Amino acid sequence: MWGMIATWRMALEGVSKGAAMLEQGGDAGDAAEAAVREVEDFPYYKSVGYGGLPNEDMEVELDAAYMDGDTLDVGAVAAIRDYANPVSIARRLSREPVNSVLTGEGAERFAHKEGFERKNMLTDRAKAFYWKRKKEEETELKPYKGHDTVGVVCLDQRGKMTAATSTSGLFMKKKGRVGDSPMVGSGFYADSKVGGATATGLGEDLMKGCVSYEIVRLMKEGLHPQEACERAVGLLDRELKERRGKAGDLSVIAMNNKGEWGAATNIQGFSFVVSAEGEASKVYLAMAGEDGRCTCEEASNQWIEDYVRTRMAPVEGQG
Amino acid sequence: MWGMIATWRMALEGVSKGAAMLEQGGDAGDAAEAAVREVEDFPYYKSVGYGGLPNEDMEVELDAAYMDGDTLDVGAVAAIRDYANPVSIARRLSREPVNSVLTGEGAERFAHKEGFERKNMLTDRAKAFYWKRKKEEETELKPYKGHDTVGVVCLDQRGKMTAATSTSGLFMKKKGRVGDSPMVGSGFYADSKVGGATATGLGEDLMKGCVSYEIVRLMKEGLHPQEACERAVGLLDRELKERRGKAGDLSVIAMNNKGEWGAATNIQGFSFVVSAEGEASKVYLAMAGEDGRCTCEEASNQWIEDYVRTRMAPVEGQG
Repeated sequence: MWGMIATWRMALEGVSKGAAMLEQGGDAGDAAEAAVREVEDFPYYKSVGYGGLPNEDMEVELDAAYMDGDTLDVGAVAAIRDYANPVSIARRLSREPVNSVLTGEGAERFAHKEGFERKNMLTDRAKAFYWKRKKEEETELKPYKGHDTVGVVCLDQRGKMTAATSTSGLFMKKKGRVGDSPMVGSGFYADSKVGGATATGLGEDLMKGCVSYEIVRLMKEGLHPQEACERAVGLLDRELKERRGKAGDLSVIAMNNKGEWGAATNIQGFSFVVSAEGEASKVYLAMAGEDGRCTCEEASNQWIEDYVRTRMAPVEGQG
Repeated sequence: MWGMIATWRMALEGVSKGAAMLEQGGDAGDAAEAAVREVEDFPYYKSVGYGGLPNEDMEVELDAAYMDGDTLDVGAVAAIRDYANPVSIARRLSREPVNSVLTGEGAERFAHKEGFERKNMLTDRAKAFYWKRKKEEETELKPYKGHDTVGVVCLDQRGKMTAATSTSGLFMKKKGRVGDSPMVGSGFYADSKVGGATATGLGEDLMKGCVSYEIVRLMKEGLHPQEACERAVGLLDRELKERRGKAGDLSVIAMNNKGEWGAATNIQGFSFVVSAEGEASKVYLAMAGEDGRCTCEEASNQWIEDYVRTRMAPVEGQG
């Protein structure tokens, strides 16, 4: 058995690539890294890697993480600038016994010494979004949007599980801001004895419930991944609303070590991608229901193509 | 009922200060902050605040966090330089709905705008330790030592619980390195409906088990804090040894919302401080036993005084 699940439709091409590796007996770490790199490299996804939207200083600061479910090795980078593939740096860091989570300049120095590819991650398109947003702010301050982290969970044929994430974080975030994506337990968790999970949405709210760790823990208690995801999101959503009057976007995916999977969300229309032994990569759409329950249905080809078309549409002001 | 528990003997003076506030009906947030500030300000504790040991570049980079158990607000700073009281900056950040975890320069910029006190946190004494260590490294590379985080959990008379941490992290760490202390769920967690916990030891290992979240969760299931601490440390210690051949230092403290407390460790001689309604602040010593079990006994006055005397002893090479 092998399998792979990832957040958002944007992961489709990466999952297909990773799944092909897993099918041929490849390693869950290699497959997770390859899948995330594919998303990082695609310039039109504006919340991950190259083309990611910048912070308030018009700098693209990236967060990424990697976890090995066999050894519990964790590696992460936060607020790193101008490296092509943060997920690969995070994976390299996961093999360090200490100093395995690095931020800012320190992360960049490590990446430089290890020979990772330098790349100016700010695209003209991202700049156009920045200036458009600046203009809008003159009249109205909008809530943050477009903070979509790519997260993957992989199971390989030897039973090894991994989790990986990558994001440019909140658009117009403050310099140095870190969300849940590079934080173990909040943005991701993997344990080959049980399963793995990753989260996407408002990092500041996701971390209040250590949601990825909680999902893996619920699976350890014997819950199906779908039930674990729904229960964890439902609980956090309720607690946040009760204590704070509202909850930010919370969306999660999970897979256990039998290749069973689940997803949950408190929004309408969280897309994710699944690939497993015997079936091609498929895009699903999750919708929040009552009491944390979610319905997941396959997305139509039309929806899948529209997703990319919308993201590749011209931006006002792009030179 | 009110109560307070904190990691390491170094927290004694801070806990006494915080406990006096709680006794008079003070807020759990104010008490936690005051207690940690006391440790940050004391120049002879070389793993927290002023006088903290520097990274490989001889820069003191500090991590701190704060969590409000009523609202689940989390604030944290990581790798911040030259501010007197990181815990106060973390607490201030916890009130931000987004951008509440800041690293490096971004954290410094926020602190500057908010008017926090600038202070060169590198002391001559810390420099002497740095040069001494450099000299030793010429012949032998030693494992990291002295990474002791101050962590406190407070319960006030209105039933509000908070958790806070502060540390300079591993001595000779890489620039930008972040441990468990500013990571919610790993270094700290608090929920007024249940209780709070904080951790100290090898951050890279503590975060592999989200140990603070796990302790609070176990208390939510009805376990006494002592049992919750022992079970969480025992489990993580076992998993690390089984998968990695060894486990770093893991020490934890917890208090529930009835003021009951607990502590556990996998080392011999983890000191912590407790203060609660009707009793003065006391220092305890925890010793690792079999199967995650720990014995906690009160430290002698001699031991308490020796602790400070050792830490204030002259350093070879200090000018």
